[in-house]
Amino acid sequence: REFADHYDQRAVEERGWIGDDEIRELGERGLLGLYVPEEYGGAGLSQTGYCRVSEEFAQIDATLSVVMGVHQSIGMKGFEVGERYDTMGLRGNDLRRLYFKDLRIPPENVLGEPGEGFRTAMQILNNGRLSLGTGSVGASKWLLDRVIQHVKERRQFDRPLADFELVQEKIGWMVSFTFGLESMAYLTTGLVDRGIPDYSLESAICKVSGTEFMWYAANRALQLKGGEGYMRDQPYEKLLRDIRIFPIFEGANDVMRAFIALSGMKPLGEELKELADISLSEPIGSLGVLADYVAGRIQREVRPDRVTRAHPELSALAEPVTDQVKRLREVSEAQLRKHRDGIAERQFVQKRLSDAVSDIYAQIAVLSRVTAIFEEQGVGPSGQERYIAETFCPRAARRVRSNLDQVETNDDERMAAIAKLAYKRGEYGYALFDG
Amino acid sequence: REFADHYDQRAVEERGWIGDDEIRELGERGLLGLYVPEEYGGAGLSQTGYCRVSEEFAQIDATLSVVMGVHQSIGMKGFEVGERYDTMGLRGNDLRRLYFKDLRIPPENVLGEPGEGFRTAMQILNNGRLSLGTGSVGASKWLLDRVIQHVKERRQFDRPLADFELVQEKIGWMVSFTFGLESMAYLTTGLVDRGIPDYSLESAICKVSGTEFMWYAANRALQLKGGEGYMRDQPYEKLLRDIRIFPIFEGANDVMRAFIALSGMKPLGEELKELADISLSEPIGSLGVLADYVAGRIQREVRPDRVTRAHPELSALAEPVTDQVKRLREVSEAQLRKHRDGIAERQFVQKRLSDAVSDIYAQIAVLSRVTAIFEEQGVGPSGQERYIAETFCPRAARRVRSNLDQVETNDDERMAAIAKLAYKRGEYGYALFDG
Repeated sequence: REFADHYDQRAVEERGWIGDDEIRELGERGLLGLYVPEEYGGAGLSQTGYCRVSEEFAQIDATLSVVMGVHQSIGMKGFEVGERYDTMGLRGNDLRRLYFKDLRIPPENVLGEPGEGFRTAMQILNNGRLSLGTGSVGASKWLLDRVIQHVKERRQFDRPLADFELVQEKIGWMVSFTFGLESMAYLTTGLVDRGIPDYSLESAICKVSGTEFMWYAANRALQLKGGEGYMRDQPYEKLLRDIRIFPIFEGANDVMRAFIALSGMKPLGEELKELADISLSEPIGSLGVLADYVAGRIQREVRPDRVTRAHPELSALAEPVTDQVKRLREVSEAQLRKHRDGIAERQFVQKRLSDAVSDIYAQIAVLSRVTAIFEEQGVGPSGQERYIAETFCPRAARRVRSNLDQVETNDDERMAAIAKLAYKRGEYGYALFDG
Repeated sequence: REFADHYDQRAVEERGWIGDDEIRELGERGLLGLYVPEEYGGAGLSQTGYCRVSEEFAQIDATLSVVMGVHQSIGMKGFEVGERYDTMGLRGNDLRRLYFKDLRIPPENVLGEPGEGFRTAMQILNNGRLSLGTGSVGASKWLLDRVIQHVKERRQFDRPLADFELVQEKIGWMVSFTFGLESMAYLTTGLVDRGIPDYSLESAICKVSGTEFMWYAANRALQLKGGEGYMRDQPYEKLLRDIRIFPIFEGANDVMRAFIALSGMKPLGEELKELADISLSEPIGSLGVLADYVAGRIQREVRPDRVTRAHPELSALAEPVTDQVKRLREVSEAQLRKHRDGIAERQFVQKRLSDAVSDIYAQIAVLSRVTAIFEEQGVGPSGQERYIAETFCPRAARRVRSNLDQVETNDDERMAAIAKLAYKRGEYGYALFDG
């Protein structure tokens, strides 16, 4: 991308704005109306196409990718721009307080039918979440390219950093997790392009997994770079500052987890007739739109033309996934029977179920991707992808097992009690020394 | 502390220096020569006293605590100050490149006997590492005070944040881990004050545990604060930027882990006569001074007047620690027999042994502290401390078990192979789309 060659992310941060010339150039290149149908002068991209572009932007600058994301929506009159926020990162993004002032949208600017605003808003949120997932893939590839070069060149104790096992562990982890995230994000955009009506659950999974992985990856990359990584003339510290907002905005990750778990359980609750008096809709309603129960959905939407035909060579990895889905369903059902309506407040349970759901989805995505590679290129020449799948899936399966075990055996009550004691004291409050 | 009332950490960051008036004031308050014996005009503080002051400084500002740490050493002539580093955080600390230029130290400025420079330098490093441990305790208490107030006041979905389980989980974890770290850091300063000749192992443990905990704690606190936490008018983002250097400097944490594991194993290697041909000294020599094998040391140095008399009411927590020490020794011995000299390069093994050693030390410290509280105040009125110990120790014991299990069963070879493939490609390199 030519634009990347003359784009200076440090200069953008210094002046606090991408730059009007840059925005104009992006507009001329047709990058400001990616979703807008071609008949209105946009690029008319599919979800996959749009997300690939957002992955590219993330490889240039996290700030740029956020500004671009915002510019895919439509400008309006009727609000006033207030004072600028002074933020940790994304300082090239001109973030300001908005004051709505007698705001009326002319009918021709209304997106969709009047009254469908909530659904449209949700769709925009889902797209934003999905592109945070693919943006994380892009940023992670960008980091890997830099970090791999660094550890091969930099020597310590008389050998390249690359030779140290704990360096290999960090890079191996980043590569295999990027592979999993990439598979998951583009499985989702593929489903959207094939017309899946509601992809809020999958978007939320990609958002949470992507933004948390990205944070750990950027942090480890800075660590690999050592003291140099702490300096502003290197890009690592800025990346860390820029991406720190991602687990907070477009739905804070803990709220997303509640959404993933509860919207996953909703159809299960409806299915179990004897639990018909449980009304799950209100707490969920406040969290976002509803989605189908993930396990059933995976079977209905994904399996038929994907995992059912998981390549026979991958059956040792695919069979455990079926067991995990079964156990997830059993554990969810037991929790629903136990807590009934109260499940909406059991965040400890929600977090573990949500993380289990995400790891199951990730395994399915990896198996589906490697199956496609086997079919296109043959099993023999696809050894590297197979090796990644054989490494990623058992790790994810262990996390699923551990999360489901902990739904039943945990020290949650102790943690909650310690927190409540601290609330009461209003401080940490354990004295080690007198006075 | 009156100084804290008129100290403005944001202003210090803006001007890039603590301020000459502030340094003078600290000097007048006798805070620049804390270690210096009273006969030379210093405060003559014990290790515990010094570390308590460094904990206090960390509660005012991380930058301040670093500057104060540096000023405990002695100014010298013979080097030139170069250009200023532009850093992610600690921007109030005037960090510059130093050029040594025909440097000669006049004899009266030599610390200790000539030729003992290495030992003196190591002692300064150990003190620095220990005070990073107690500094983390201070910063964490400071964070807890703020975060507890925030979650009690801020409401979401019609109730205070404090009521949400995942909020309780974060606060409970911060409180109990702070308790463990505090116990460990001041057990160590107590040992130093009682004349333990070499405390490099314990200092390294406090440094690694403290700086990693602090990072996660500051990150979770920012998350609890939400979008506001990302703003520069709140202290959270600055804390995160300031402390990011701590896992890197005064010995990068992965190097410290190698040091902890190898210096722990050295006397074990000497003890096992049939392994006498293993020379562990060279790789360790390059990492730092040597220390005794931690388990033996814990028995010799700590047990006699501490854990041997672990309060009978705590025996359900103390007995598992003995088993962990035994298993640690067995696993270490097996690794030493397997890898011999090569153990110095087995970083995967080192990391797990080091983390196990740290968690064992933490349990001993917590038990020792709660035993002392039981003896002073009686078992009945010490319910909160007992509850923390009963929560902290089993968690730490689970981490020890998991780390020792993973020494034997792991996917290390796979991670290393994936990294090496990426080195060869020079990039991430798994294509999902053609072209």
